[in-house]
Amino acid sequence: MSGAPRGAAVSGAPLDAALRLALDAGESVRGSTTPNPPVGAVILDAAGQVAGVGATRPPGGPHAEVVALAAAGERARGGTAVVTLEPCNHIGRTGPCAQALLRAGVAAVYYAVTDPNPPAAGGAQTLRAAGVSVHGGFGADLAEAGALRAWLHRQRTGRPHVTWKFAASLDGRSAAADGTSRWISGPQSRARVHAERARLDAIVVGTGTVLADDPWLTARQPDGSLAPHQPLRVVVGRSEIPRTARVLDDAAPTLVLRTHDPDEVLGALADRADVLLEGGPRLAGAFLAAGRVDRIQAYLAPVLLGAGPSAVRDAGVGTIAEALRFRRERVETVGADVLLTLVPDRE
Amino acid sequence: MSGAPRGAAVSGAPLDAALRLALDAGESVRGSTTPNPPVGAVILDAAGQVAGVGATRPPGGPHAEVVALAAAGERARGGTAVVTLEPCNHIGRTGPCAQALLRAGVAAVYYAVTDPNPPAAGGAQTLRAAGVSVHGGFGADLAEAGALRAWLHRQRTGRPHVTWKFAASLDGRSAAADGTSRWISGPQSRARVHAERARLDAIVVGTGTVLADDPWLTARQPDGSLAPHQPLRVVVGRSEIPRTARVLDDAAPTLVLRTHDPDEVLGALADRADVLLEGGPRLAGAFLAAGRVDRIQAYLAPVLLGAGPSAVRDAGVGTIAEALRFRRERVETVGADVLLTLVPDRE
Ligand SMILES: NC(=O)c1ccc[n+]([C@@H]2O[C@H](COP(=O)([O-])OP(=O)(O)OC[C@H]3O[C@@H](n4cnc5c(N)ncnc54)[C@H](OP(=O)(O)O)[C@@H]3O)[C@@H](O)[C@H]2O)c1
Ligand SMILES: NC(=O)c1ccc[n+]([C@@H]2O[C@H](COP(=O)([O-])OP(=O)(O)OC[C@H]3O[C@@H](n4cnc5c(N)ncnc54)[C@H](OP(=O)(O)O)[C@@H]3O)[C@@H](O)[C@H]2O)c1
Repeated sequence: MSGAPRGAAVSGAPLDAALRLALDAGESVRGSTTPNPPVGAVILDAAGQVAGVGATRPPGGPHAEVVALAAAGERARGGTAVVTLEPCNHIGRTGPCAQALLRAGVAAVYYAVTDPNPPAAGGAQTLRAAGVSVHGGFGADLAEAGALRAWLHRQRTGRPHVTWKFAASLDGRSAAADGTSRWISGPQSRARVHAERARLDAIVVGTGTVLADDPWLTARQPDGSLAPHQPLRVVVGRSEIPRTARVLDDAAPTLVLRTHDPDEVLGALADRADVLLEGGPRLAGAFLAAGRVDRIQAYLAPVLLGAGPSAVRDAGVGTIAEALRFRRERVETVGADVLLTLVPDRE
Repeated sequence: MSGAPRGAAVSGAPLDAALRLALDAGESVRGSTTPNPPVGAVILDAAGQVAGVGATRPPGGPHAEVVALAAAGERARGGTAVVTLEPCNHIGRTGPCAQALLRAGVAAVYYAVTDPNPPAAGGAQTLRAAGVSVHGGFGADLAEAGALRAWLHRQRTGRPHVTWKFAASLDGRSAAADGTSRWISGPQSRARVHAERARLDAIVVGTGTVLADDPWLTARQPDGSLAPHQPLRVVVGRSEIPRTARVLDDAAPTLVLRTHDPDEVLGALADRADVLLEGGPRLAGAFLAAGRVDRIQAYLAPVLLGAGPSAVRDAGVGTIAEALRFRRERVETVGADVLLTLVPDRE
């Protein structure tokens, strides 16, 4: 046992409130930390008052715990740290967080998710060995489904996390009989998609979508200007796309992958964590058939079309027993639309 | 002013609770009262305590107010009646409810919806003229969207109210590529559809559904036995259906209409109020194109098919600007499925 001070144990409501703050802090930096995880940390002083809040800074900058400790200063002594991920143990660019917590004299550490990353793991053990009261798994469900989701998926599977987003009518069509589709979903849904794009590492479409819609695939702010962070734009397919295609403009980098293999696409994105598949129906069908969709976000608009292409085509299902089954994670209303978030039922 | 007694005015929470009880009472008899409306009534005594609850009995039986008054007995004197529909004024098979309320000595009447039916209307005026304190429109929104919905629609438009119900995958398909569809939606959704059938006046399908699925179209109880009330089964289309079709068995009456005109179908059902259109895609498309769908119940299952027929076909929409637009009335989860209830946006 080292000389870590013993503070009064904080519990109950202040801890729960600190967890929520830490989760929100992590969410606020989602998209800006890859390859590091978007972590949130809160330091409570010995009396259980919030002394500092921090979140992972962009690569090269300090980790969440270090930011929160700097804000807390001397108030961290005898206090409690609440972190969404196990404090790291390795000496990276910013030094191990476990040592920083010890130096600051924190008496207790609550963390949500155990670090699955071997060089970084072991922070909990280091802290415990130094006499700190350490509690893992605190708010683990919330943290796993939250900002850390894509990073954790990549750590565990070696592949980026793929969200397939689509907008469709109630009868599942993504365009009318004549191919027109602006706009099936409402303005609130579109604003939300743009806000989400600004937090992604990459956004993937097939050549069919580029040839049909000539989209920019950029993240735009409500005033129409480009968001500071732009995801990598990825176009998949063997067809030539015109040099004048908007997706090739210089608003953001673009990768053209002349393949039909979803795993080749994911291999090319191996250093990314959070990937959005934005269609269209054939590329989505290929990813679904290959089991490479980790989450679905379905924006369903209160309209019927009765004709036109369906949101997914050729997902390898011939009969009802082969249907691809998902588990509902969330149902929300977004303006007039309904947003269903689902994950594969195998999970 | 006649000699109606003046009771202590009841207000606030007891009235709201009585309204909820009256709405529930009306809902409990929905489907058993056509051509009369499924009304609910509650009598509060002079102290604001519930003295009697009643609902419309089957045709030929007493109206809701009379049932509630009988339960309340002498406690109705100086009390308050809360009714989902304006008390009737006409001398029908059961005598006017307005007179019954006066005879019982009720001091105040709150009703939700004004009776749109000319021979019955005027009950409020009769009561007021006799010195009763009368308040219309109390809980009108709830009552209009509740048990009275179909009956009111029929009174106002001369047509039965049509609910189109469908079950589909997230990509809007009602069957897989090989035509198999048992079961896209889950057991809770199917149980709910059966419970709902037992409250309907008629259930309509096209010949295509009969030829493809050979459904019974009966309402069944959880144990598989037939529900006491069965809706009229209606098959629409010019094709011959086999004499051995299940829909022609003697579990319930069946009407075969050799037409393609939705208004001819509704004309044949003019004495019904609450009609369910259960598909399939072409008949639904025809009703939608004709503007003859008054409500949609979409059971969306968390599955993807990527091939197979869509839930609606040929609804007369050629381009996105012609999309049929609806307003969301409700979003519910039913087991693993999501149930969206929508009404036409014109309403
Ligand atoms: N509502 C929505 O959410 C949404 C989103 C996106 C697009 N859309 C609509 O979708 C329509 C375009 O449909 P689409 O299916 O052509 O778009 P797509 O899926 O984006 O592109 C199809 C192309 O992807 C390539 N591809 C790559 N891997 C493939 C694989 N394993 N299997 C098959 N193709 C593969 C092929 O290109 P090559 O032939 O070049 O090899 C194929 O032609 C447009 O009208 C657009 O508006 C709707
Ligand atoms: N998922 C669901 O909720 C659901 C519900 C019901 C059915 N289904 C599926 O739907 C499939 C059958 O599809 P369907 O479209 O053939 O079924 P349908 O719409 O029930 O029947 C089509 C037939 O309706 C008749 N019809 C009447 N008026 C019409 C009009 N104005 N326009 C066109 N046709 C009219 C025609 O019959 P005639 O040719 O005889 O004149 C037509 O062939 C089955 O596989 C069944 O499983 C799914």
